[in-house]
Formats: sequence, structure tokens, C-alpha cells
Amino acid sequence: MKIDVLTLFPDMFGPMNQSLMGSAQEKGIIEFQTHDFRQFAVNKHGHVDDYPYGGGAGMLLQVQPIVQTLESIQPAEDARIILMDPTGVPFSQEIAQEWSSASQLVFICGHYEGFDERVRSYVTDEVSLGDYVLTNGELPTMVMVDATVRLIPEVVGNADSIVNESHQNNLLEQPQYTRPREFRGQEVPEVLLSGHHENIEIWKRREAIRRTWERRPDLLEKADLAPEELQWLESIKKETSE
Amino acid sequence: MKIDVLTLFPDMFGPMNQSLMGSAQEKGIIEFQTHDFRQFAVNKHGHVDDYPYGGGAGMLLQVQPIVQTLESIQPAEDARIILMDPTGVPFSQEIAQEWSSASQLVFICGHYEGFDERVRSYVTDEVSLGDYVLTNGELPTMVMVDATVRLIPEVVGNADSIVNESHQNNLLEQPQYTRPREFRGQEVPEVLLSGHHENIEIWKRREAIRRTWERRPDLLEKADLAPEELQWLESIKKETSE
Repeated sequence: MKIDVLTLFPDMFGPMNQSLMGSAQEKGIIEFQTHDFRQFAVNKHGHVDDYPYGGGAGMLLQVQPIVQTLESIQPAEDARIILMDPTGVPFSQEIAQEWSSASQLVFICGHYEGFDERVRSYVTDEVSLGDYVLTNGELPTMVMVDATVRLIPEVVGNADSIVNESHQNNLLEQPQYTRPREFRGQEVPEVLLSGHHENIEIWKRREAIRRTWERRPDLLEKADLAPEELQWLESIKKETSE
Repeated sequence: MKIDVLTLFPDMFGPMNQSLMGSAQEKGIIEFQTHDFRQFAVNKHGHVDDYPYGGGAGMLLQVQPIVQTLESIQPAEDARIILMDPTGVPFSQEIAQEWSSASQLVFICGHYEGFDERVRSYVTDEVSLGDYVLTNGELPTMVMVDATVRLIPEVVGNADSIVNESHQNNLLEQPQYTRPREFRGQEVPEVLLSGHHENIEIWKRREAIRRTWERRPDLLEKADLAPEELQWLESIKKETSE
């Protein structure tokens, strides 16, 4: 997969050479490149922003440097051209899943107050990381790249560990424990030490449902629960209301 | 404000020396430090993870190295100790606002499959960036730091530009334009060039409402609209349904 990023801060992308993305690049699965769109500044001082028509606080990124940078990288016919934008669709696991089978992703990172509206006519996706205000699109781009790249089958070795992860199946993960058995008075639940696999699996699933109900009941509506699990949910609800 | 990050990947935090966070550190408003919790590994090979009790894919971070690192930095009495965790409360602008007046934030970044459950008893907040699966807590931490730090009054110069930003008042920003007036056949709307301030302000507010209704109707319920604006909303709805 080719990943291109249009940015004014190419130096911010150091984290993309580390951890999962670092190894995905080393393995040749990902070809990652940044493109500073200041190279196509119209302004002779190298500025790529200007005052908004009609007044208002702050500056806007101009359309021309962005469009010309986009053209210079000649994206593939089916490339996703993604605008990082607080008014866009909230990013989600479903979007990451969809992008993970693309041949090329091009991210456009904003800064300052926003973009000239006309930039939107050159993109295929407008996406927001979440309902909070950030300084620029660089960090959100890295988050989205990470979420997407790890869904490419060759990237994460153990396919199992993806399937069991939080949010993949709309249940939060159950409490988990590792050594030591006892830490400053807190002990690992007996059942996990029992070696009784069936009881352990039941405990895990039940605690995952309990945690989801306690913390994110909104996710439960989308979870695919077996009839027995729906009964557990009812008894968990009763326990808590007592 | 002091910001401390417990991480296995201190090198990933380069972006915190750039842009807004870079200047907040230069101005002395933020004191940012990373702490590698591998320094307190119990395992003689320096590992800080181990197999989960009761089986399962992947590894878990052990409680002891994290707790000992936490103790070594001696957080202030009122410090927020924040666990990056997919089962946590979804991060939001309200949380950023609350954190922005804290004296110290301590972030604990996970990796691998998750944490030993007992880590939770040492934290004050458990937060998730959103409903998508990420490789580790480093990028989410940087996003949350950025959203929080920019709300500290001395950090962003122009207080006006924060107030007008998307999501701050539950309305998305209206379309904005800067030079040139015409780019490859697309022109700036006449009204923005008119110099008629009242008309411009009405247009802006109306287009913000329109955009929010078209893209994020869920936000409109929380927006504080004047009676006149509610009428605009009704007429926008009619226009679209025609």
C-alpha cells in the first residue's frame, strides 16, 4: 500500500518509522512518504495561507498549493484522497477496515483555521478523528494510518490477537491478569488459575459483557450475543441494581 | 502544567517538540517528560509483559513496572493519572477542557494486548481516543495532550480563534474561502466579497447551521440556536427535501 501525506510539518511523522508502522515499512508492505505543500506556495514568502474572504479570525490554507502538490504525486485512479477535517465523518473501525484494502491513501493535513472550501472538490473522503479541537491534522493522520495499516493481514503477525481485540466485535475486553499472582494485596481471580478451560471461557465472556454493560452500554446494542449470553446480561443487570 | 508520559517508546514523542506543543514548552507553560517503564522491569531480560492467566492470545503489561515508575515520578496530590485504554471513557472536548486546568497530567501508554487489571487501581482516569483499535497508547496520548494544551489560555495567542472553532459550540464551521477569487472555474460566493458585514454574518451563521444539519445532525440537538436561527433551520430542511 502506498501512503502519501500532504503536510506543512513533515518532521512530525517520526512515529511512522517506529513500532508497527516501522516494521510494515521494513517488510515492504507500506511505502510511506510525506510531501510539503509549501513547495507550491504562490506567495513569494512561501506562505500557503491567506485571510478569509468576508473576514473572521485566523488564516485559511489556500487551494492552489494543495491541489498542485496532489497533482505532482499523481495518485492512482482508485486512490483515496482523504481530507483531515473537523466537519468530516467521524473516523471509525469500519472506515479503517475499508481503507485497509486500498492500494493508495493520500492524507491532506490542515493547520491554522481551516481550508479554502474548494479543496473539498479534489478529495474522496472527509474525515474527523473525533469531536475535539486539535491544532492540526498531522496527529490524526498518524492515528488513522495506524488503525488502518494494522488491519492489513501481513502486518500484524498473530491474526488471532486482532480478532480478540476490543471494539472488533462490539464488546469491551474482560479484565486480564498476568504475573505475579498477588501484587500489594490484590490477587488474580481463582478461576483463571483453575486450569478449567470451559469455566475460564465462560468467565471471560461473562466479564466482557459485564464490563461493556457497565462502561459502554451503547455498544451492547450492536453486539452479537447468543441466547445464553443474553441471559447472563439480564442477571448482570439484576446484580448491579440490587 | 507538568505532563509526564509512561511509555515503552519515548522516541515516538518527537511531535511534542513541534508546532503548538513545541512553543508551549519554549514559553515554559508546559514541562513535558517521558519515562520508560522498562527501567523497572522485574524480568531479567528487561521484558515488562507476560502471558495472561487463563490463556489467550498476546501478552499483557505487568502491573509492577508501571506502578514503580509512577511512584518514582512522585505525582502531585491532585495530578490526573490517565490510563490510555480502549475500554475507557471516549475522549471529548469536555474532558480536554477539564484537564486544561490541572497542575499535572500523567499518561500511561499501553502496548501489546493490554494491561494487568490491577493497574486500574492506581489511576484517576481511564480514557479511549475513539472506537477504533490502535497499536499503542502513544499516538492517542499526543492527540489528547494537543487538545488539552491548546485550551490553556496563554498557549494559543488569539482567544477569538478558539471560540470560533468547530465543535466548541456544537456547530460545524461554515464554508470558508481565501484568495484567489476564482480557481479553475470555482468562484468565491458573491456575498463574501460584498463588504456588507451584516449580510456576511447572517450567511456565515446560516451556512454553519446548514452544514451541521447536512453532516452532523446529532450535534444540532446540543447547539444553542436563537429563535431566528431555528427558523433558518426549518427552511434549510425544506429546501433539502424539495
